[in-house]
Amino acid sequence: MAKVKKAPRPKAQTPKGFRDYFGSEVSERAEMLRAIAGVYHRYGFEALESSAVETVEALGKFLPDVDRPNEGVFAWQDEDEGWVALRYDLTAPLARVYAQHRNDLPTPYRRYAMGPVWRNEKPGPGRFRQFYQCDADTVGTGSVAADAEICAMLADTLEVVGIPRGDYLVRVNNRKVLNGILEAAGLDGQDKAHERGIVLRAIDKLDRLGKDGVAALLGKGRQDNSGDFTSGANLSADQAEIIMRFVNASENITQKLNEIAGESFGLSIKVFEDAAQKPSEGSFEPAGNSLDALEYEVWNGAVLDYLSELVEDSKVGQEGVDELRQIENLLAAQGYFADRIRLDPSVVRGLGYYTGPVFEAELTFEILDEKGRKRQFGSVAGGGRYDDLVKRFTGQAVPATGVSIGVDRLLAALREKGRIGGSVQGPVVVTVMDRDRMADYQTMVAELRNAGIRAEVYLGNPKNFGNQLKYADKRNSPVAVIEGGDEKANGVVQIKDLILGAKLAQEATLEEWKERPSQYEVPRGELVAKVKEILSQWA
Amino acid sequence: MAKVKKAPRPKAQTPKGFRDYFGSEVSERAEMLRAIAGVYHRYGFEALESSAVETVEALGKFLPDVDRPNEGVFAWQDEDEGWVALRYDLTAPLARVYAQHRNDLPTPYRRYAMGPVWRNEKPGPGRFRQFYQCDADTVGTGSVAADAEICAMLADTLEVVGIPRGDYLVRVNNRKVLNGILEAAGLDGQDKAHERGIVLRAIDKLDRLGKDGVAALLGKGRQDNSGDFTSGANLSADQAEIIMRFVNASENITQKLNEIAGESFGLSIKVFEDAAQKPSEGSFEPAGNSLDALEYEVWNGAVLDYLSELVEDSKVGQEGVDELRQIENLLAAQGYFADRIRLDPSVVRGLGYYTGPVFEAELTFEILDEKGRKRQFGSVAGGGRYDDLVKRFTGQAVPATGVSIGVDRLLAALREKGRIGGSVQGPVVVTVMDRDRMADYQTMVAELRNAGIRAEVYLGNPKNFGNQLKYADKRNSPVAVIEGGDEKANGVVQIKDLILGAKLAQEATLEEWKERPSQYEVPRGELVAKVKEILSQWA
Repeated sequence: MAKVKKAPRPKAQTPKGFRDYFGSEVSERAEMLRAIAGVYHRYGFEALESSAVETVEALGKFLPDVDRPNEGVFAWQDEDEGWVALRYDLTAPLARVYAQHRNDLPTPYRRYAMGPVWRNEKPGPGRFRQFYQCDADTVGTGSVAADAEICAMLADTLEVVGIPRGDYLVRVNNRKVLNGILEAAGLDGQDKAHERGIVLRAIDKLDRLGKDGVAALLGKGRQDNSGDFTSGANLSADQAEIIMRFVNASENITQKLNEIAGESFGLSIKVFEDAAQKPSEGSFEPAGNSLDALEYEVWNGAVLDYLSELVEDSKVGQEGVDELRQIENLLAAQGYFADRIRLDPSVVRGLGYYTGPVFEAELTFEILDEKGRKRQFGSVAGGGRYDDLVKRFTGQAVPATGVSIGVDRLLAALREKGRIGGSVQGPVVVTVMDRDRMADYQTMVAELRNAGIRAEVYLGNPKNFGNQLKYADKRNSPVAVIEGGDEKANGVVQIKDLILGAKLAQEATLEEWKERPSQYEVPRGELVAKVKEILSQWA
Repeated sequence: MAKVKKAPRPKAQTPKGFRDYFGSEVSERAEMLRAIAGVYHRYGFEALESSAVETVEALGKFLPDVDRPNEGVFAWQDEDEGWVALRYDLTAPLARVYAQHRNDLPTPYRRYAMGPVWRNEKPGPGRFRQFYQCDADTVGTGSVAADAEICAMLADTLEVVGIPRGDYLVRVNNRKVLNGILEAAGLDGQDKAHERGIVLRAIDKLDRLGKDGVAALLGKGRQDNSGDFTSGANLSADQAEIIMRFVNASENITQKLNEIAGESFGLSIKVFEDAAQKPSEGSFEPAGNSLDALEYEVWNGAVLDYLSELVEDSKVGQEGVDELRQIENLLAAQGYFADRIRLDPSVVRGLGYYTGPVFEAELTFEILDEKGRKRQFGSVAGGGRYDDLVKRFTGQAVPATGVSIGVDRLLAALREKGRIGGSVQGPVVVTVMDRDRMADYQTMVAELRNAGIRAEVYLGNPKNFGNQLKYADKRNSPVAVIEGGDEKANGVVQIKDLILGAKLAQEATLEEWKERPSQYEVPRGELVAKVKEILSQWA
């Protein structure tokens, strides 16, 4: 018989681009998603959890010319089903679900979904191939009231999870306005698809490229720092000017308003203060920007005028401006003013499938970047109207609109704000002084747990008592309980206040140390009461 | 130019064996998992969410002789990582995580995990290729206190999610006892692996095959109803007798106790009643079995005696019996008696990797099967000690023990008990009588939502009012709000109590109908108060 070759040990590693989440990383996310689900529920949305695996054709990533259709997705060939893949977002599955179950679902169908999605992309720092999304969509209505509702819900959501008013802005634009501007610039029509693509991508990258970069891409093209050259759209000067008037919209509007006001807009007009929405209890911090209610009205009005002029006589463009006006009116009626939700021509949203209003939630407070420079935290959610996704399946256009929250970025923001990520309290640890009396120790933890206290017996090798305390330290335990032979004989237990102990060790003088014992001897019957007392001090 | 062939429409379907979960299916599961996480947390366990994708070698499913190592798992070849696959359970990833992060994790490491797992198996009715598991494990301790703790936690968990005491049993056995019995029957040793496999599988299938079926498999073999023949272990009569004494353990023990007691055991001895654990508040229903505290003591003692005799002088067998005795003592010290956690020789657990105590949670209440016959609900969770999983990675044995809850089965059980699955109340629907006054309607829902009431404006085509009420019906809405032109002019709104309306439509006589209006006209300013009043009646 041939000698069986022993298989080498497997490597204990996640595949590249994947990671594990531990302890509070998991529970903090779960709590945040639960809070978000609460808001979505109050708005009438229903939960949906679709299959993680879809047929490649349903995902719309089917590439008939390549052997493996796994560009961007993780795909494999199923014996019965052909090519299937992990979902790369929650919107494509929604379109499939709605098409499949449309006879049973209410119309409009408001649904929310939260869960992991997978992308077959090169991983990088902070860029994973599995991450969470949290979406809400309304399928089956073309009413802009649905878009306005999503924007209002997004603002509520951010406040509920712990982003104070003034620290975020939901910025709203409309693809139709953009289409109108492209039309005004003579870039409509099938034959201009290539140029349109370059222009849209350039505008979407304004933040990164700056105005000069965008202008370069409207013309011959742009060389980046690495020396790579990106071909431009080769627009004429007139065409480029229209686009750049759009790119410069915010600046131009501000300048115009300042001319009218005679002094710096944003500091002068203070009339409608009473009309401003009062901040909800507990969530208010000084606003990150100084516009007040009338100024918001003036701002939104000026944006609508500016855009209306810019799209000239483009029908789709004027329709887009009109939709923005409606959205603004609907939101104002519900008390959402431009301190929370604001018209902003610079919002483009990269994805090709948007057909109407688009929105983006941006956190406006500053953080330090890797190089120690201040910058705004930036986008945490985005979405818009997409009217053609369901049509792929049914042939019938089904209007839809929705938003996707970047769960990891929002968690990072909450960490920045100190809303989560404080040190998490570990369990009370009952130490083991006598291996044979394990039942006694288990009885203690049972009593503690029945009183609602997180507690456990040390289950490692009890021989070295120091290791037990090291374990308690690693678990961030607030209290250790000790019952040796003497204590047992005297009917008492020792209770160590580990938090106080750590503080004293760091700060106290020898005298203070002696005066403030961090260890207490109490009768066995008072175990639970004493532990409760200590915990209440550190709650 | 060649004509571009239009791609056919994709089918709107989940791949076979996959499904979507809607509304309360999602939220009920989320609530149940949250409740379970609460118990696990109180026991000192930490959350872990490992990557859904693992290298095939880490999963331990690597089959070097086949082209695709996807037997049982969904696998694909990654450009950089080689073969990777979706996790098929939460235990294999735990072993990888512990091996990878062992220097940073506390020892023992108590962790819980909940999430989907994927199996590449033929789907069948009620058998899906993606489903949820919910696990808790303690890694890094060989102490049977860890096993006892898992059993206690499992009992607590079942009660917290809504299975009343008396409706479940955690049954405990020990693989070492089984090994001892195999040794006593001369089935230990490398050369008997084949026979051992047949015997273990036969015992594990006792429920399905019956005793005759098991006996047949110990001998020459067994022909099933379809005519298929399964080869047996060809044991001698003496060998088979030892195994069958194990299979018949419960029956033999009961009989022996009855002989001693002189009358039917289970009805006679009523002494230790006071010692029985008092049920925790709100969770008690009449016990599903009639043993009392002393009888449990007697029972467990008799089981230990019987098993001790059966394993004869097998060292590992006696070790197993001793571990069971320790587990029982630890549990009794914490107030867990055999009405909740019971020694039971019939528990085997199929998986090959168990090395010590094994346990299974069974729901003991009866349901009707597909054919209308009564049967016990059966197993909802199981687990045990596995000491070799981490060793695959590190070469060092790391003892571990844990339990996995079958999330879907437990949800089904809660549905059977009426704990979940009642009709879920939909949102209050504000109808649209005048498309141009959408802002008014949005203001109403904003008021309702701010009062914590789930509410939405009808966003479909408002032309047909009947469709709006049909929508409210489909959403299970409790209340519809109507404000037409007349109401607006008079400063009032109409509020329809849809639940009362539905009741009246079904039950009421014409007179009752007239006397109990289900629609109220109230001043606009009293909208929220009136809706609250109606909802409070149906809460």
